[in-house]
Amino acid sequence: MDRLSVLTNILKANQEIATENRRLFEKEGTLVINLMSAPGAGKTSLLEATVRALGGHYRLAVFDGDFETDLDSQRIRALGTRSHRITNGSVCHLDARMVARALTEFPVEGLDLLVIENVGNLICPASYDLGESLRVVICCVAEGAEKPKKYAVMFHKADVVLLNKTDLATASGIDLRELEKNVREVNAKATVFAVSCKTGVGLDAWVAWLRDAIVSRRIAEVARC
Amino acid sequence: MDRLSVLTNILKANQEIATENRRLFEKEGTLVINLMSAPGAGKTSLLEATVRALGGHYRLAVFDGDFETDLDSQRIRALGTRSHRITNGSVCHLDARMVARALTEFPVEGLDLLVIENVGNLICPASYDLGESLRVVICCVAEGAEKPKKYAVMFHKADVVLLNKTDLATASGIDLRELEKNVREVNAKATVFAVSCKTGVGLDAWVAWLRDAIVSRRIAEVARC
Repeated sequence: MDRLSVLTNILKANQEIATENRRLFEKEGTLVINLMSAPGAGKTSLLEATVRALGGHYRLAVFDGDFETDLDSQRIRALGTRSHRITNGSVCHLDARMVARALTEFPVEGLDLLVIENVGNLICPASYDLGESLRVVICCVAEGAEKPKKYAVMFHKADVVLLNKTDLATASGIDLRELEKNVREVNAKATVFAVSCKTGVGLDAWVAWLRDAIVSRRIAEVARC
Repeated sequence: MDRLSVLTNILKANQEIATENRRLFEKEGTLVINLMSAPGAGKTSLLEATVRALGGHYRLAVFDGDFETDLDSQRIRALGTRSHRITNGSVCHLDARMVARALTEFPVEGLDLLVIENVGNLICPASYDLGESLRVVICCVAEGAEKPKKYAVMFHKADVVLLNKTDLATASGIDLRELEKNVREVNAKATVFAVSCKTGVGLDAWVAWLRDAIVSRRIAEVARC
């Protein structure tokens, strides 16, 4: 069997499990986010800000794909939110089977929002559906304005793109309008937020958008019952 | 065949080709660098600075693993240095076969230094020997001080680690000593340089080190003749 056939089979098997995961999440009325970015773009910082804003109002949990350390999970648990670490040795992405296995240990029953923090990688995670409701991609502005074009598959498949660390834009010599234009070139439909998890700028708009998405998912579940 | 067996076979086949590549590079007396980092950490900026410093004194060339755009190659060619783009569709790492194929189109005969600019990814490229003389890993300080621990395989295998964008350290709230300490924890032997490709700080030390490595390689080749 050649490498392409092996990959095709892996992705087909992944899709079947992802469809099962998605069915379960929809049945429970849980909004599930697959959170992806390059290393150090701010996934955990965004999660901390989101938990602080919504943790008192909704039932939240996090699946953490940091396979080498427990640092990210510790940060989330310090805020009183449940966090379950997915440990799979040295892998470059999460897949639907890992999420399905985590669900047997950590059921989502009654959760409003589950965020799956993927492995820090702008390439491999883009190919693996986990059963999520939304794909959210964070781009650190210090990475450079051309990154959406260079990692086009990841940005093309995103439902939401957050341009993070806008407080470093001037020092990094980055034109935010050019960066957003490059996002639009590979994905005209994505919702884009410019934020700084450090200063808090722009986070209100993201939190309001996410609150609406959680409520919409809950209404859809009630309507189905 | 299970996934682990498939991966083991792929890595074994890769190692055989890498050994052939390495034999060729040693025969030619060419120092070959496998340059790796997360997206946007500054691989091409470091290459530009290196080419500016050494291009007039040594015969240099670049293999560029940017598979979506020609932007990186354009930047290197603008400085009068030969750059060959390795295009393999959407892959998450370069492998030894891609390099061997590039060598049939772009011979290294007479080159002092070949830099292979890998795909922007801190995970997958770590597993694939290309036949390089040295592994050089760039870590952007804005990614966070804990990154060497989180991407331990990549940092553990590095011969040189460059901590880049030190001009953003204060604005990012990063303690450079803590970052370097975390590099040392996963790799006590690596040579570490703190640099800013933007301001030029620290680049002299890197260039002097690289010049010594090029000369040593050339002397070893002459001694063998």
